[in-house]
Amino acid sequence: MSERPDVRPVMILGISGSGRKGSYNSALLEEARRLIPPGSVLVTYDVSTLPLFNQDLEKAMPPSAREFKEKVKQADAVLFAAPEYNHSVTAVMKNALEWGDRPPGENSWDGKPAAIVSASTSMTGGARAQAHLRQIFADVNLYAVNRPPVLIPRAQEKFSPEMRLTDEKSLESMRLLLAKLVQWALMFRGVREGAGQA
Amino acid sequence: MSERPDVRPVMILGISGSGRKGSYNSALLEEARRLIPPGSVLVTYDVSTLPLFNQDLEKAMPPSAREFKEKVKQADAVLFAAPEYNHSVTAVMKNALEWGDRPPGENSWDGKPAAIVSASTSMTGGARAQAHLRQIFADVNLYAVNRPPVLIPRAQEKFSPEMRLTDEKSLESMRLLLAKLVQWALMFRGVREGAGQA
Amino acid sequence: MSERPDVRPVMILGISGSGRKGSYNSALLEEARRLIPPGSVLVTYDVSTLPLFNQDLEKAMPPSAREFKEKVKQADAVLFAAPEYNHSVTAVMKNALEWGDRPPGENSWDGKPAAIVSASTSMTGGARAQAHLRQIFADVNLYAVNRPPVLIPRAQEKFSPEMRLTDEKSLESMRLLLAKLVQWALMFRGVREGAGQA
Amino acid sequence: MSERPDVRPVMILGISGSGRKGSYNSALLEEARRLIPPGSVLVTYDVSTLPLFNQDLEKAMPPSAREFKEKVKQADAVLFAAPEYNHSVTAVMKNALEWGDRPPGENSWDGKPAAIVSASTSMTGGARAQAHLRQIFADVNLYAVNRPPVLIPRAQEKFSPEMRLTDEKSLESMRLLLAKLVQWALMFRGVREGAGQA
Repeated sequence: MSERPDVRPVMILGISGSGRKGSYNSALLEEARRLIPPGSVLVTYDVSTLPLFNQDLEKAMPPSAREFKEKVKQADAVLFAAPEYNHSVTAVMKNALEWGDRPPGENSWDGKPAAIVSASTSMTGGARAQAHLRQIFADVNLYAVNRPPVLIPRAQEKFSPEMRLTDEKSLESMRLLLAKLVQWALMFRGVREGAGQA
Repeated sequence: MSERPDVRPVMILGISGSGRKGSYNSALLEEARRLIPPGSVLVTYDVSTLPLFNQDLEKAMPPSAREFKEKVKQADAVLFAAPEYNHSVTAVMKNALEWGDRPPGENSWDGKPAAIVSASTSMTGGARAQAHLRQIFADVNLYAVNRPPVLIPRAQEKFSPEMRLTDEKSLESMRLLLAKLVQWALMFRGVREGAGQA
Repeated sequence: MSERPDVRPVMILGISGSGRKGSYNSALLEEARRLIPPGSVLVTYDVSTLPLFNQDLEKAMPPSAREFKEKVKQADAVLFAAPEYNHSVTAVMKNALEWGDRPPGENSWDGKPAAIVSASTSMTGGARAQAHLRQIFADVNLYAVNRPPVLIPRAQEKFSPEMRLTDEKSLESMRLLLAKLVQWALMFRGVREGAGQA
Repeated sequence: MSERPDVRPVMILGISGSGRKGSYNSALLEEARRLIPPGSVLVTYDVSTLPLFNQDLEKAMPPSAREFKEKVKQADAVLFAAPEYNHSVTAVMKNALEWGDRPPGENSWDGKPAAIVSASTSMTGGARAQAHLRQIFADVNLYAVNRPPVLIPRAQEKFSPEMRLTDEKSLESMRLLLAKLVQWALMFRGVREGAGQA
């Protein structure tokens, strides 16, 4: 391969765990689009309209699920905007993770780097949702960047009426996290392509 | 109130986290129907066909979600048959928990006793799904009986072709767990009705 | 038994997960002493000086561990003041839980009601420590009251220099939680003694 | 720097969460010593004799804790042999993690790759301990390899009387996990040294 491994842009797939209009977490993905480092691209996919996962549908998979899996496969890295419902991830988010992982032998997440951001009107800001998400990642074989944590509590005070994140500290944390995510994507790509050449 | 608190049968609502035909966890609910103590009744509700929860639908709630919430409210106790997908509860199960909890002020689970059973073809038998479920219960205010644990690994060896649970030890654990669940339901009912009289 | 089940005071054992002088969580136990309802008594035990648990010591148990287990057994209910270190409970707290549970057949926690309070200088206030603690409770067979949550973030702003909790909302939450804990202890005692008489 | 980054052997620090004589998890570390790939070295440290962590000791740290932190710092990677007590990591393990992380600004774990193995006489084999451990890693900034999982249930059937692991499948999983851990250590080293040269 003559192409330098860092020439192709890093493709980041952004997934929001909420389909609500006016979701702070969906807004974080829009913000991320502006904060990613040069040489990377962020595309989003609306997972809130996927059908509820059922193993009986695995073989004749619904077209939307198939399309979603394709987007995951094409990504170099995944950005999860994770609301917390009832001390865990949302059903919308868990459902996307299940479609991505199935059927056996077709895990679309396999070995990719990931990052997690959360916004919440509550005080704890999504800490427990992120904890569950990391445990799920161990099984679907995603590798989440640890730092900096991006947990944005009392989101209603930190977004403008136009749903722009205005809190400087949160913006800086997101910028650092996304830079690290892209660095990981390049590191993983390097190792994969290096291995391919050996 | 002249009625004795223990005369009315204990209504148990059974929920399976899988909509798959031939699900071992759905089969556990059928088994539970035979194992519950006298004076109790188990009804099941298929939560695998509920729409994916979205806060925008809270106010004009879909009829199936409204019907489901009504069933939860009528129950004295809830039995969760919880498969483990990707080290957590299934999206189907989490989705049911979200509909039950919403909208604010209409938490249908509030203060009820619960029990968890899991069957799995894997070795760990659902331990991690049950752990996440208990964390979710803390928020929706369900009280899960602790013992005995009902985790049935290698389910394919423990069910007959007709999907009857044949493992004696698992049957005995389920019987004990269900007896405890009904005991709790009566204890909670006694306290509520006692409080009502004061 | 001629004694009325509600005459004997409810004994609450308070355990802090920190041995640090000036610990906010230890201060919460002192505050709890003032907030418990009439008819209850709170005693504390310093678990930060117990030896590190080792199964080899189970049979010839160190005197301090034996004494601690005795205190647990005498309690009707347990109040855990749980700091969060590294997204989990402290080693000091986990160590106390292990001594209390061992050796096999001598679980001192067995079947008791419990409540959890946390103070923290961080934003998340102990949410993840409480989540882990609840998972541990499922095994040692403690039953934690769910509500209200007592998570006190930015503790440095909510305690006086004399380490008195001054935040009215936190005080009210603690009062409600402790009332619920005592109510549970009486409910459990009633059921136990009722069963004993049958 | 004239030295090639892959010439220096990869130093793996092995930590067992049990101080019990005859611990299956400590035996796994001995087994790992035989299974690591060429170019790597495994040293172990007995963390069961460290004093219980207390923030008041942070500044004048006990010599054993200081020595332990030094070993962690020197390691390129960490191997955790994690027993499960009461659905979580042992106090011995959590205590080591706390000493390693403290005081502020002196986190000895920072940014290192890690792997987890567990043996257990129970059925679930340590799944819940590993789940908690991963959540802790997010805070101390360790990066755990995801696959293959090494969970060895019913350990009493899989070790010889001389405490050698005899189960072929478990041996192969350990071999793969350790190869992956060393691969990660080299990948991380490459990135660090590359960054240092830039």
